[in-house]
Formats: sequence, structure tokens, C-alpha cells
Amino acid sequence: MVDISQVQWSTRRWAEEIETRLMPGGAQDAFVNVRNDDPREFDAIFLGGGAGGRFGAAYLRAMGGRPLLVDRWPFLGGSCPHHACVPHHVFSDVAAQLLLERTFSGQLWFQDFTGKTVSMLAVIEMFRRGRTGPHAFMNFQSKEQLDLEFILGARGRIIDAHTVAVDGRTYRARHLVLATGARAKSLPIAVPDRGGVFDYATLVDDLDYEPGPVAVVVGGGKTAIEYGCFFNATGRRTLIVSRQSPLPMVRDSDTRRYLIERMEEQGMEFWSGAELTSIEGDEHGRVRAVMIDTPTGEIRIPTDFVFLGLGEHPNSEEAREALGVAVDAAGFVKVDRRMQTSVPGVYAVGDLVGAPMEMFKARKGGTYAARNIMGEKALYDLKDYPDFLHTHYEVCWLGLGEEEARDRYRHVVVLKLPPDNPDGQAVALPAGDRVMLYAMMKPQLSGFQKLVIDGASRRILGAFHVGYGAKDGFQYLAPMVRNGLTVDELGEMDELFLNPSYFIQLCRLRAGHRVLRDL
Amino acid sequence: MVDISQVQWSTRRWAEEIETRLMPGGAQDAFVNVRNDDPREFDAIFLGGGAGGRFGAAYLRAMGGRPLLVDRWPFLGGSCPHHACVPHHVFSDVAAQLLLERTFSGQLWFQDFTGKTVSMLAVIEMFRRGRTGPHAFMNFQSKEQLDLEFILGARGRIIDAHTVAVDGRTYRARHLVLATGARAKSLPIAVPDRGGVFDYATLVDDLDYEPGPVAVVVGGGKTAIEYGCFFNATGRRTLIVSRQSPLPMVRDSDTRRYLIERMEEQGMEFWSGAELTSIEGDEHGRVRAVMIDTPTGEIRIPTDFVFLGLGEHPNSEEAREALGVAVDAAGFVKVDRRMQTSVPGVYAVGDLVGAPMEMFKARKGGTYAARNIMGEKALYDLKDYPDFLHTHYEVCWLGLGEEEARDRYRHVVVLKLPPDNPDGQAVALPAGDRVMLYAMMKPQLSGFQKLVIDGASRRILGAFHVGYGAKDGFQYLAPMVRNGLTVDELGEMDELFLNPSYFIQLCRLRAGHRVLRDL
Repeated sequence: MVDISQVQWSTRRWAEEIETRLMPGGAQDAFVNVRNDDPREFDAIFLGGGAGGRFGAAYLRAMGGRPLLVDRWPFLGGSCPHHACVPHHVFSDVAAQLLLERTFSGQLWFQDFTGKTVSMLAVIEMFRRGRTGPHAFMNFQSKEQLDLEFILGARGRIIDAHTVAVDGRTYRARHLVLATGARAKSLPIAVPDRGGVFDYATLVDDLDYEPGPVAVVVGGGKTAIEYGCFFNATGRRTLIVSRQSPLPMVRDSDTRRYLIERMEEQGMEFWSGAELTSIEGDEHGRVRAVMIDTPTGEIRIPTDFVFLGLGEHPNSEEAREALGVAVDAAGFVKVDRRMQTSVPGVYAVGDLVGAPMEMFKARKGGTYAARNIMGEKALYDLKDYPDFLHTHYEVCWLGLGEEEARDRYRHVVVLKLPPDNPDGQAVALPAGDRVMLYAMMKPQLSGFQKLVIDGASRRILGAFHVGYGAKDGFQYLAPMVRNGLTVDELGEMDELFLNPSYFIQLCRLRAGHRVLRDL
Repeated sequence: MVDISQVQWSTRRWAEEIETRLMPGGAQDAFVNVRNDDPREFDAIFLGGGAGGRFGAAYLRAMGGRPLLVDRWPFLGGSCPHHACVPHHVFSDVAAQLLLERTFSGQLWFQDFTGKTVSMLAVIEMFRRGRTGPHAFMNFQSKEQLDLEFILGARGRIIDAHTVAVDGRTYRARHLVLATGARAKSLPIAVPDRGGVFDYATLVDDLDYEPGPVAVVVGGGKTAIEYGCFFNATGRRTLIVSRQSPLPMVRDSDTRRYLIERMEEQGMEFWSGAELTSIEGDEHGRVRAVMIDTPTGEIRIPTDFVFLGLGEHPNSEEAREALGVAVDAAGFVKVDRRMQTSVPGVYAVGDLVGAPMEMFKARKGGTYAARNIMGEKALYDLKDYPDFLHTHYEVCWLGLGEEEARDRYRHVVVLKLPPDNPDGQAVALPAGDRVMLYAMMKPQLSGFQKLVIDGASRRILGAFHVGYGAKDGFQYLAPMVRNGLTVDELGEMDELFLNPSYFIQLCRLRAGHRVLRDL
């Protein structure tokens, strides 16, 4: 182990030390940042230094408590910067950029992209090199700015509800916070053992060849679509194989239709009502083809690249065995609104406690656990939250879709852009940051947006946006909508034109009506 | 004139008709959409169909009134889609895209951009072709969706406070709303008469040659910097010549420094404390060089391209002569909080009434004029508004900068990313949509963000963002900050990670402290 409690490493030093430990055969000794001169007992050991653990520890420390973070990886931040959110955003940014390059291939200053395939391996290798930068900063910030104690690069083993063994020592605390996350679900069928089948984690860790011209994606949810759009954008034939129709979480059919149409335009194939039944390996144990059971029969697709977007499985095994914490049918640890498990003094946060597998829930769960541990009664209510995913676009939504709203309200008003195709023409609006070239030259690619309103109360019920640059806005719009934001109040705000969402100005165009009308 | 009151044109038809009228020698007859069968008098004639006029008319119509819009151009929307916001956003999007292409030149799939100059003329010609799309939609929407009456493509002449003559007829209304906008200020020195000196309007209308390798920009405000970054991004040497330091409106020195450093990295030259003293023409009357008076003496710069970003001059001459409306020293029409001018029954809105020359002020001014005309007492207060500009980035801000805050508050807390350079290294955060490749490979290019907080009340005082995708968010953040948003409330919101601004999570990392600390 390396005792770093008395030294201050630069982010560069951190990056070098982390890189060594991520390399096969590199140093494997743990980073130990524990102040042995501090006589206080730990208020909590956070087992897992991802989003929930790190934010929980930071909050507890800010409240004056003493946390200890333990993570098997040599960096804090967990799967997000290593396997999950960060690479996903790199790939989605690449997809957005390649959509632009393909659309304007050979026009203006754009290179000719005809028939061009982009190297997936090069993008992934770039990410592998780049990710140690955020890792290093996370360690630096946690130690120097957030004043956290931690042991990294060593697996913590649960001894009891107060004790964790790590790197040859045991540490005791008043409380234990389980934050061990989740991992990608695997296929229930035999998989060739020498490669070709990936999930979000193994893709960035293990890919060591340039995939061929066909990518088969299994699943129809966020991860499947997000990675599928990346594969498609690189120039590969991409099949999305799923039992149900894709993107059920986008709760508005106009919005979903816009998304699917744009993906199909880019050549993505949605094989719905279909199932991957077997994977065929070659003589080297690598994937050679898949069999897909479709409504019209079984089809064999030659491919060397299969991606699984099947959801998450909780890393709850050790906590169940060592502590007997109660879990649900899928194995996720059950917690109450204080983030307490069934075992007194033991809390759980993050992906380990189940859906939604979102950053805000992990981080906030950590802070609620910290507040309860420090003696505050803090109840975490998962309110109606805004949501997003990426296709080649950024897609955001909150509240009710049009169909749900019509089921519940008598007078539903919809403001949308472009409007229902007025005359068979694509309309060059919305225009805004990052879609200006589309607006000028390929109007149908410039996005879609929609507000769903209760005409009686004039309150916003739902909002949907396909384009770029609306994610930040949806964060702030969500609590206002929850608090009863009306079309009149929204229309009274000050837009930063050309704003990516046109919500403010669309409301203002209609707010003069005593009886609201669609637009 | 073409009477279109009884027909419904498609957006395609509108586009064709508008294009003809914008072509030299094309049809010049007005579009008249007036319902002669409606016996009611007009409640208001809006002279000018730009943002203020069109939104004012739409609001008045929605309230049940009868407006008439008159514009000399054959389309509604005014200078924004034709000369101002829309082309500016096209050029800023191009600058952002070219920053990416130059940064990653020859890496991944990016083409080799070494020494490459991008055609400005091609981008401008693309915009000239593309702008009729939004024009057509604006006419379609105004007529078919907003139910507006208008006369387009004919200059309205003010007869008196109730009467306007247009296209050979006179129209009377209870009120007149002046919305004739503003135009770019010209230089107070002699300018060659055959071209080479442009402002935002003439650039898109008149440029008919490929500018040479040097662009000289006069001014240090938003327009100068926004267009300057576009010229720079195309590969031209770009001088920003201004008396004062650039970007004084960005009221936070960290943020301003980040912006200027990034622009200088791209080769932009800031010639501050300097003044353009003369422009030299060649034998054809085109610009050949400029003389610039600098603190170290007069310097001659050969160039064929000069761009003026000197601010705006109001189009108030006719209203002053015909009606005698009171104006300020700069010629802007004076209005009260009801948007009334000094002449009873006459209102004025938009750029014509002076700063801020922003879309929200024009549009909202129009709706306030409409409400007063329709008998409501509606007072327009220009509250503390969010603001933005573009460099190669999108830059947003609201409230107080750090220095101003420290002048007014005893305990100012700052949360920023990246933090003060911890060890001479660039930090790979913030990362987020549209900066992921920078975050992975060129960390210092991935943006800057900052929250300024009053430690005593825990209220947010100011917010600053350099990057992409924060404009929508600043719109909604602004009223919350005005209403006293605290660091605790912000930290309690649900982020859509990786959100372009990290404000929510930065607050959450510090909110546990009873006495807030910097981050």
C-alpha cells in the first residue's frame, strides 16, 4: 500500500499512478489516505466510491462527520467515468458529430464521407487514454478539496454491520453504507468464450479488434439505443433486436415517432418482436453469426460484434451473504426513505437499490444517507424527475405525454414545433445552437419539441425535446412544473434566443387566449 | 398587390413567392392579407413585422382584438431571420464546428485541416438560400395559425397617430405601434464606395467575393466578437480593433479571462486601446488596407475585408418627423412602462426603444403594448435578465460576477470548474454534451463555469458558463435566482448527467457545510 495521507499529489501524478494500476501487470498496491492521527471513530464506511458513495461521504464530511470511502478501483467516481456515463457521452457526441458529417458530406468544408466507416476501436482507445484525466481529478478533488479519507485499489470485505476488512486491516465505523452498484446483465444463452459479445463495461475494457460491418444490438432501452446509434454513425449496419418496440420510456408518440424516423433514415434497423436465440462461434471461439427469432421466422445474421443492452443486475451478493440485507425479486437491496436497509445501521444507495439507474438518484441517495447518519431525519422522496437519452440527438422529457394527458384531462392543449406537417413540407424550425446547418439545409433534421398543457388550469403537464442543448433546461424546468408552472408564467420568462427549446416563445404566442389553443 | 386573404399558401409556395421578391428585378407587388369583409376597425397597426410587431399582433389577436401588421419586407420576423440572430447563429455554429475540426485535425476520422481556409462566401450563400425557409414558415404560421392580418413587401408611411398609408391605400386604427427596429451604426470616416466594409446586414446581403486572408473587425462588443470568431475559425487572421478591452458585458473576470485565452489560442488578435482611423481604397473603389491608431503608433494593415460591430442606430426618423415622438439623445424612442410614446395612442417596441437589443425584450414589449391597447393595465419591468453571447463557444451569464459580489457582500463563496489551476495541469472537467472529445484529449478546451453565492443567506448571486448547452437552462435559472434560490435548493434538484453546467452537483458537494466554502 501507498500511504498518501501526508502528501499532496498533482493531478498528473494521480493520472500516472492510476494508469499503472489499470494496466495488466502494473502496480497493484492500494492508495491509503487514512489519518491515523485522528482519534475519532468513523461515522460511516462507504463501500463503493461511485456517485452515491462519494457524494454521501462528501456530504457527511461537510456536516462535520468522518467518512471512509473504500473502492476496489484505484480511483473515485465509480463506473460512471470508467464504463458508463462518460464513455456513453463520448460515443453519443461522436454519433451527433458523425450525423452532421454524413449529412453535409462533400458540402461546404465537410469531407466526403461517402461509404466511409469510422474506426470504433480508435474512438474507444481514445476514451481509454482519456478517462484517467477525470479519474485523477476525482481523486484530487476528493482528497484536497473535499477532505475525504479513502482506500482505493483494494476490495473491501464486509465483516459485520460495523466492520470492513481492506488491504490487510479492519476498519470499524458507526454505520455502513453499501454503494457497490450494479453490472450489466448477461445473456441466458451460451456465448463464445473468446470475444465478440460486449456490454457497456467490457466494450471499453476489452475491445481489441475493429468490428466488421454488422453490429447486432440486443435490447430496446436507453443503453441499447444509445450505443446502437454510435455503431450506426460509424457506418455499420446496425440491428436493434428487442421483444418490445424500442424506447417505451419516451412517453409521447409524436416524439417517439420523430426519433425512430430519424434513426431509420440513418439506416438503423428495428427488429421488434424479435429475440436473439443463439450465437455461433468460429474456430477461435469468436462470434461469427447470430440467430434471431423474428415474427417471420428465424434469421441468421453473420456478424463479429454483438452488444447487450439488457439492463442491470445489482452487486448485492456479498451484502446478502455477510449481512443478510433484504433484497427484492431482482436482487436489489431494499431501503426505506432514510436509505436504511433491513439491517440496523446499514444503509444502501445508488444502482444497488434499483431504478432509476440515474446519477441524481445515486448522488442524492448518498447525501440522504449521510444526513440520517449524522442525526438528521431526512426522507428521500423520488419525485417526478426529468429524464433523457441520446440517439444521434439529445432527447429530454418530463411529465406527461400527450396521450397520457388526454386520458387524465378534458382540455389538453399542445404547442409543438414543427407543427403537424402543414403541407407535406419539412419546416425549417426549430433552429438553434448545433442545428443551424440542418435548419438551413435539411429542415427535417433540426429537431422536434412539444409542450403538453392542461387548458383548464393552464398548467404545463409535460415537455419533450429532441435536438441539442435542452438538458440543462429540463433540470430547472422540472421543479417549476412540479410546482404548477403555467403557460402564462413560462411565456413571461426571458428567452435567450435562438434558444434550443422554443417553449417560452411558443407559450407567449398563445398566452393571450382566454381559452388556450393548440399551436 | 396580391390579395391572399382568401387563399392558403403552402410553405413551399410562400418560399417561392418570397424568393422572387428578394431577387433583384423580381416581382415587387405586396402581399395583402386584409379581411375587407370584417367591419371592425383595427385596434392597432403594427408598423414593422419583426419580433416586437409580430408577437404584439399575435397577442392582441389572441385577446380578441384586430391587429394589422405592415412590413416593407415580404416576410414577417424582421431582421432576426434575415440579417441578425439567425445568420449570427449559423456563423457561431460554424465557428464551434470548425474549432472542433481544427483541434482534432488528422486525428480519429477528422480531416486534415492544416492551413485550410474555409470559404466564407459559401457559408453566406448557404444562409441566403436557407433563410427563405424560416421566412416562409413565419408567414404561414402568422396567417394560418395565429390568424393575423398583414401587408408585406410594401413600405408603410405614417400619416398621423391613427393612419398609415401603404401600397396605395390608407388604413386607420385606434392605435399605432411603432416597431421599425434599428440598423447597424456606420463609421464616422470615409469608406470606399465599391465594397469591402460590412456590417451584420450587408455582410449577408452584399458579400460577393471571397475575402482575403485578413479580417479587420471594429468594435469589442457582442457582434464584433461573434462575427470575429467566425472569421477566425474560417482560417483568417482576425484583428479585433476596439478602444476598450473586449467583452466588458461579461461581468466576471475569471470567465472573461477564460474566453480571451481561448480566442487568443485560436490566433485572434485583440488590438485594444486602438482605433480605425482610415480605410484605403484601391483603383476599383474596394478596400485595400486600413490604418489603425494603436498605443504604440499608427499601423497599416492590408486587407480587403472590414467588419463593423459598432452598435445600433434606431430607425426613428419617420416617427419623429410625422408624429413628433420624443426620443433620447441617441434617437431611440422614449416609452413608459406601458410601452406608450409621448404621443397619445402611439406605442413603440423592440430595438427602436433602445437597449437591451434582445429578442425577449422586443417580443415581450409587443405583448405589453397589446395588453394596454386592449384595456388592461400592464406595466413592463425589465428585470435582471440572463444574457449570452457566442465566441467559438456559447457563453451565458446572469446576476453578479465575483468582483461585484465581493463589493456588496461580506462572505462570497465561489464554486467553479475547473478549480483554480491546482498544479499547473489542465483539468478534464467540465465534460458534457458537445465537449466530450475536448474533455478526453484537450482538457483546457472543455469549458469553464462558476457560481457566485452569498455565504450568509446561501443565495445564488450569479452564474457563468462557457461551453455548450446552457442557454436553455439560464432562461429558467434566472427567475429562480431572482426569487432567492439557495445553494441548498439547487443541490436538491435532479441533474441530467452529464449536464453541461455542473451547478446542481457542485452545490450538493458543498451544501452540507453550515459555513459554506469555495470549491
